[in-house]
Amino acid sequence: MRLRVDLIPKGPYSDVVVLIDVLRSCTVAPILFEQGLEKLYLCPSLRLARAVAKEQDYLLLGERGGLPPEGFNYGNSPAFFINTDFSGQSAVLVSENLPKAISNITGAKHLLLGSLYNAEAVIHKAFELASEEIALVCCGMLGSEDLDDSFTAGYLAARLKRADNKLELRGAAAMTLSLFRAFPNPLEALWHSRTGHYLRSLGLEEDLAISSYISQSEAVPGQRETIAHERANLYCFDTKL
Amino acid sequence: MRLRVDLIPKGPYSDVVVLIDVLRSCTVAPILFEQGLEKLYLCPSLRLARAVAKEQDYLLLGERGGLPPEGFNYGNSPAFFINTDFSGQSAVLVSENLPKAISNITGAKHLLLGSLYNAEAVIHKAFELASEEIALVCCGMLGSEDLDDSFTAGYLAARLKRADNKLELRGAAAMTLSLFRAFPNPLEALWHSRTGHYLRSLGLEEDLAISSYISQSEAVPGQRETIAHERANLYCFDTKL
Repeated sequence: MRLRVDLIPKGPYSDVVVLIDVLRSCTVAPILFEQGLEKLYLCPSLRLARAVAKEQDYLLLGERGGLPPEGFNYGNSPAFFINTDFSGQSAVLVSENLPKAISNITGAKHLLLGSLYNAEAVIHKAFELASEEIALVCCGMLGSEDLDDSFTAGYLAARLKRADNKLELRGAAAMTLSLFRAFPNPLEALWHSRTGHYLRSLGLEEDLAISSYISQSEAVPGQRETIAHERANLYCFDTKL
Repeated sequence: MRLRVDLIPKGPYSDVVVLIDVLRSCTVAPILFEQGLEKLYLCPSLRLARAVAKEQDYLLLGERGGLPPEGFNYGNSPAFFINTDFSGQSAVLVSENLPKAISNITGAKHLLLGSLYNAEAVIHKAFELASEEIALVCCGMLGSEDLDDSFTAGYLAARLKRADNKLELRGAAAMTLSLFRAFPNPLEALWHSRTGHYLRSLGLEEDLAISSYISQSEAVPGQRETIAHERANLYCFDTKL
């Protein structure tokens, strides 16, 4: 079995892809499911999100430049969602990086959303589903590598490698393992990342803290092939994979 | 002016490329010139290196798996070269990563070898030569990203950015800046890299220490267009650029 790490999406893929956007969408997603959400639609377009949410009576969540757009129910802040009940509801989450990264993932049999927050759970699920390769794919920031996702990939890679020492390392796997070992704690890596700097400039330090918590959630948001691309650029996730 | 960082070579390039292989070839190269070497030929092939060295009466330096091959004058150890006089001599250096990386650099007008050891000097030379872009290109290890070169790129990027705050960041520039800021000292980054682990397993810790010294040398090895590719896979460098 191969363990591949890409610091930005570099398809094609062939088996299991764990997409990482630790600040903040892939931390928010498991929290939403923990809080009772049924389905999560990811979408890059405010207009499409508004139309779908209105038509289906879904909640509107998301960000533009780190903050909630006008008319949205909520932003994209883990610090807020952690105390909010979403039982029986579905939501459309607008974000810049994650849907774009999903659109660059080709050939994957299974696509999971991973972060520090659901680390152990996503590792178990990846092992359960994979037959030849687990690819940890960082979303990065605006098409470039960033430290937050690279560190998170390193943490997940270290846990995977500990569980199965025979995993063959590919791509940036070895580098992210070194990166992970070099940081005394996860918050420091998130803090020093480009995205971390940006969120701090908006006063969102608490989101960094929550995103640095490890294995708090058992929820593994997964996209199922059969329900992918119901509409262009609208990606449906649940935890039933 | 653009400041671009690539964690592995990803040509084409258009202007100045600073190639980084901090452990160890790009640390060794300025040391050799400091110690009096006239010309340095980089070469991936033992056979070609032996033939050229014999024909031209050049010294044979280099490594296979981190150690000097049979019949070579010296290995590739900065700890050794730092006390050796090379006045009036030229040498062929066989290494695995650096010549391969050079062969992947297309379109560059000027190609310089950079490391921590010649940091200030290579920064000055890059500014002097560049008209539109300075690209810091990491050699990586066996085709994958590694922490030693990524950290070094971050250090050089930070110095370049401090000298000219208007530089537009491209590629992994921002991530390597974060990386650089996160490490308390350079040796720690080299120590935790994949290449660093490997050299430590060979007992070459002193090479890591010397490679972590900053701006000890004024020598900037540069490849000149007119003398490039005298033979296939044989790259000639001097400090006269």
